[in-house]
Amino acid sequence: LIVPKTIILGAVALDNIKTPFGEVKDALGGSAAYASLAASFFSEAGIVAVVGKDFPQKHIDFLKKKKIDLNGLSVVEGKTFRWEGFYEYDMNQAHTKDTQLNVFSEFDPEVPEEYRKADFLYLGNITPDLQLKVLDQMDKRPKLVLSDTMDYWIKEDKGKVKEVIDRVDIALMNDGEARMLFDTPNLAQAGRKILELNSKYALIKKGEHGSLLFSENSIFAAPGYPLETVVDPTGAGDSFAGALIGYLAQQDSVSENVVRRGMIYASSIASFNAEGFSIQNLASITREDIEQRYEAYKKMITF
Amino acid sequence: LIVPKTIILGAVALDNIKTPFGEVKDALGGSAAYASLAASFFSEAGIVAVVGKDFPQKHIDFLKKKKIDLNGLSVVEGKTFRWEGFYEYDMNQAHTKDTQLNVFSEFDPEVPEEYRKADFLYLGNITPDLQLKVLDQMDKRPKLVLSDTMDYWIKEDKGKVKEVIDRVDIALMNDGEARMLFDTPNLAQAGRKILELNSKYALIKKGEHGSLLFSENSIFAAPGYPLETVVDPTGAGDSFAGALIGYLAQQDSVSENVVRRGMIYASSIASFNAEGFSIQNLASITREDIEQRYEAYKKMITF
Repeated sequence: LIVPKTIILGAVALDNIKTPFGEVKDALGGSAAYASLAASFFSEAGIVAVVGKDFPQKHIDFLKKKKIDLNGLSVVEGKTFRWEGFYEYDMNQAHTKDTQLNVFSEFDPEVPEEYRKADFLYLGNITPDLQLKVLDQMDKRPKLVLSDTMDYWIKEDKGKVKEVIDRVDIALMNDGEARMLFDTPNLAQAGRKILELNSKYALIKKGEHGSLLFSENSIFAAPGYPLETVVDPTGAGDSFAGALIGYLAQQDSVSENVVRRGMIYASSIASFNAEGFSIQNLASITREDIEQRYEAYKKMITF
Repeated sequence: LIVPKTIILGAVALDNIKTPFGEVKDALGGSAAYASLAASFFSEAGIVAVVGKDFPQKHIDFLKKKKIDLNGLSVVEGKTFRWEGFYEYDMNQAHTKDTQLNVFSEFDPEVPEEYRKADFLYLGNITPDLQLKVLDQMDKRPKLVLSDTMDYWIKEDKGKVKEVIDRVDIALMNDGEARMLFDTPNLAQAGRKILELNSKYALIKKGEHGSLLFSENSIFAAPGYPLETVVDPTGAGDSFAGALIGYLAQQDSVSENVVRRGMIYASSIASFNAEGFSIQNLASITREDIEQRYEAYKKMITF
C-alpha cells in the first residue's frame, strides 16, 4: 500500500444539475470528488468519504482511472448523498432544490492505516467534529492542513468551527462565511481574526472576484479569471481547494510564495471547471491547458 | 491663461455624510471635486461645473490652494447641488437620504476657451447629452477621453449612453451599470460589448473587488486594496477616475501599460480616500504616501 501524498476528506455525491446551458442527472459530484480530481493534476490523492451501495461502478472506475486512491472510500448499506440544484440568469448564485444526506448523515470517517502518514491533508466541508476526528487519526501532524467550512456549521456552532481553524495551517472559507464567522462586513478584518485564531494563513474565496490570502505580514490578492461563458459553477470552490493542496504537496512546501503560486493554479483549474458541466472539464483538461491558463493569469495581473 | 492638461466635467456639491465613524455637514463634495483633487497629484486639472451663490468661499480657496483651475466653475444664482447620505454596517452600500439638484438641474456647461485645447478630458457622471456637448466644444479631439455614467441615465436612455461610449477611449462604469447596460450578469461579456461600441478600453469598477480593464486582445485585473478600516467610501469612484486621467495626462500616454499602472495609482488614491471622511485624505496625503501604497499594491499581486 502506497501513502498518497494528499488526503482529501469530504463528500462524494450524485448530482442533478440544471443551468441555462443544459442539465445532467446522477453525475459524479461532492466536494471530495471535485477536490481529488483537481489535486490529481499535481499529486497522488486519496479520499476519505462514504457512498451507498447504489453508487455507480462507472464513477468508481473513472476515479481509479484518474489514479485517485479509493482505499478511504467506504461503501455502505443505503443511498449515496444526493444534491439537486440549478442556476438561472446569474450563474454566481446556486439554488438548491433538494439535498438528501442519506449515508453521509451517519458518516464516521475512518482514515486507512497508510493514509495516516500523509504530509498534506485537506479537511473539506463537513461537520467540524468529524474534521477534528480525522486530524486526530493522523500518525503525526501533517506538514500542512487546509480546512474548509460552510455557513451551516458556522450558524450551528461558531466555537467548533474556530477550534478547527486554530489547528490548521490554511483556513479557507468564502467571503460570506468569513463575514458571518466574525460578524463583520470587512474581509480584511475577518482575515486578521482568522490569523489570531492561530492559523498561519487565512484564505478567503470571493467567487468570480478571486481570492485573498492573509498572513502575518502580508496580503496577496488573486483576481478571478473573467470567463465569458460560465456553463456550470458547481464544484468551483472544491476544485480550487483540491488543486491548491495538490500543488503544495507536489512542491512539498508551505512557503508563502508557493501558496501564492498555488492559488493561481487553483484559480486556473476552478475556471476550467466552470466552463464545463459537472466534472466534465476536470476529466478532460491536460497539464498543458493548465500551464497555458496560468500564463494567461500572469499576463492579466502584470503592470 | 494656461491650458490645464486635464479637464474634468462633473458636479461640485455640498455633502452631508454620516457613517459609523462620525459625520460631516456642508462638506465639499461632488464628482468633479473628488476627481480634480485626485488628478491634481499628477497633472494640472481644470473643472467644468456649476455651484450656487451659497457655495462657501472656503471651498473655493481650498481648491485654488490645491492648484485646481476654476475658470470653468460657474457660480450662478441659486443653491448648490446637495447630497445627503449615510452608511451603516456594510460600508460598501451608500444610502441616499436626500438629493437636491438645485443649480445643477439647469447646468449648461460652457467650456472656457483655454480648456478647449486640452489633451485629456474626463466626462464625469452627468446626462449623456451634456457629456457630448462638452466633447463637441473641444477645439480638437483630445488625445484621451474617459467617460463615466450612472444607472439613472442607463434606465432613462441606453442609446444615449452608448452614443457617448462610442466616442470615448476609456468607457468607465461600475459592475452594476455594465450589467444593466447590456442585460447580462457576466462582466466579461459586458466588457466585450463595450469594446464593440468602439471604445478602445472598457474599464469596469467593482468597488472593494477592484477593477477590470478590457482591450481588444487582453484583460487586466486590478484587485481592490483590502482596507481594515473604511471610514467613508464617498467619492471612491470619482477619486479613481480623477487619479487615472491625471496620471495618463502626466505620462502623456494612452498605451495599455500606462493605463494599467494608472489603474493601480487610481486604486491607491481611492483607498486612501475611503480611509478618511469626505475629502479629508485627498487634502492631506502626499506623493510619498501614494508611492508607498503603489509599492504595497505591487507586492500584493506578485507571485
